[in-house]
Amino acid sequence: MNYFYSNNIIDKEIILDEQETVHCVKVLRNKVGDNIYVVDGMGSLFFTEIIQIDSKKCCLKILKSKKIKNNNNVHLIISPTKNHKRIEWMIEKIVEIGVERVSFVICKNSIRDSINLDRLNKIALSAMKQTQNTVLTKIDDCAPFQQVIDLILSKEKYIAHLNKIDNPHLSSVLKNDKNRCILIGPEGDFANDEVCYALKNNFIEVSLGSSRLRTETAGMVSATILNL
Amino acid sequence: MNYFYSNNIIDKEIILDEQETVHCVKVLRNKVGDNIYVVDGMGSLFFTEIIQIDSKKCCLKILKSKKIKNNNNVHLIISPTKNHKRIEWMIEKIVEIGVERVSFVICKNSIRDSINLDRLNKIALSAMKQTQNTVLTKIDDCAPFQQVIDLILSKEKYIAHLNKIDNPHLSSVLKNDKNRCILIGPEGDFANDEVCYALKNNFIEVSLGSSRLRTETAGMVSATILNL
Repeated sequence: MNYFYSNNIIDKEIILDEQETVHCVKVLRNKVGDNIYVVDGMGSLFFTEIIQIDSKKCCLKILKSKKIKNNNNVHLIISPTKNHKRIEWMIEKIVEIGVERVSFVICKNSIRDSINLDRLNKIALSAMKQTQNTVLTKIDDCAPFQQVIDLILSKEKYIAHLNKIDNPHLSSVLKNDKNRCILIGPEGDFANDEVCYALKNNFIEVSLGSSRLRTETAGMVSATILNL
Repeated sequence: MNYFYSNNIIDKEIILDEQETVHCVKVLRNKVGDNIYVVDGMGSLFFTEIIQIDSKKCCLKILKSKKIKNNNNVHLIISPTKNHKRIEWMIEKIVEIGVERVSFVICKNSIRDSINLDRLNKIALSAMKQTQNTVLTKIDDCAPFQQVIDLILSKEKYIAHLNKIDNPHLSSVLKNDKNRCILIGPEGDFANDEVCYALKNNFIEVSLGSSRLRTETAGMVSATILNL
């Protein structure tokens, strides 16, 4: 069973864009009258019937719809890694695990200050369909540290760093809020004044265990724990 | 600070093999009299002094040693994925997270029945050094399902599968034993008789959450949870 994606939904009709139409009609050979599943990336799943096929779009009639609620609202704020492949890999994994939003933050020790947002969005979409999740992870482009911190809305806020050795483990400090974010630094960790700024903004210092995880592994491990 | 690896340790002396010698002497330009850290892959960290350098080996004197105890003993038993790159990526991540042993198991629905063990061992070694862990994950080559199940020594045994929808979440059933294994199936999941065989062998059925994780993601997510 394949899932298709569309954000073009009006009343009882859904339009698939050109890329999804190619996948639906040319690759999987669906025809008018066939039933397919569509997700809107915002938590809804639709059971539909194909009513019209053009070369560049596909019209669907909604037969049934279901809102699939995710109780967790996880926001990952992470420095981009030097190697873009590692960012791409991480995006696939955290979409599978279920992260509502990812923001890329430029820290003093960040080696990279840009990402290929278009490519990451494609990977996220593909991973969402693959895992049959209905929520598409929102990816924010790179922004400076203070600007990102100032705009965070999560109720529980954590920062994982290695500047202090006795930070409690993330899994031991979680509250029941389920509206959580975590801040993960670059390969060279956060600068001290960045940690101070986060603490002033009510972030709680945590550890992710005794191993020195790579940045992208820390992103994925913390996404797993915040989803528990 | 770099870690080097050797399993050639006699009394107060350590020999680095050719590959580690190249890294130590040619790449990082260490000389006789310099101090370096060495791990034995079995939990010990050594502070050493270089006493002799040959073209193919390097002799070290142990100045201090420390046994670093890991309380968790995690054994991951997993079907190889179709794409070998995904296995390689997973090995890097689970070594970072801390898994004592990985066994590759051939199930009815496994698409691949072999792995490049040599390559995986190199990746594991490199990841251990990178994360400054002292334990080298032991990797077992592919073996048939029943044979693998029959040889498992862990006290807590879990099987994650999608054949039943109401399995409890892995994180909710953990005991305090810290001697744990988990069985992760192939892309097409376990066959029913494989699940039955595992249950007969005292495995507990669990879920890893509502998402349909890829095999390698399931391996990494369960390694994270079993290490909590």
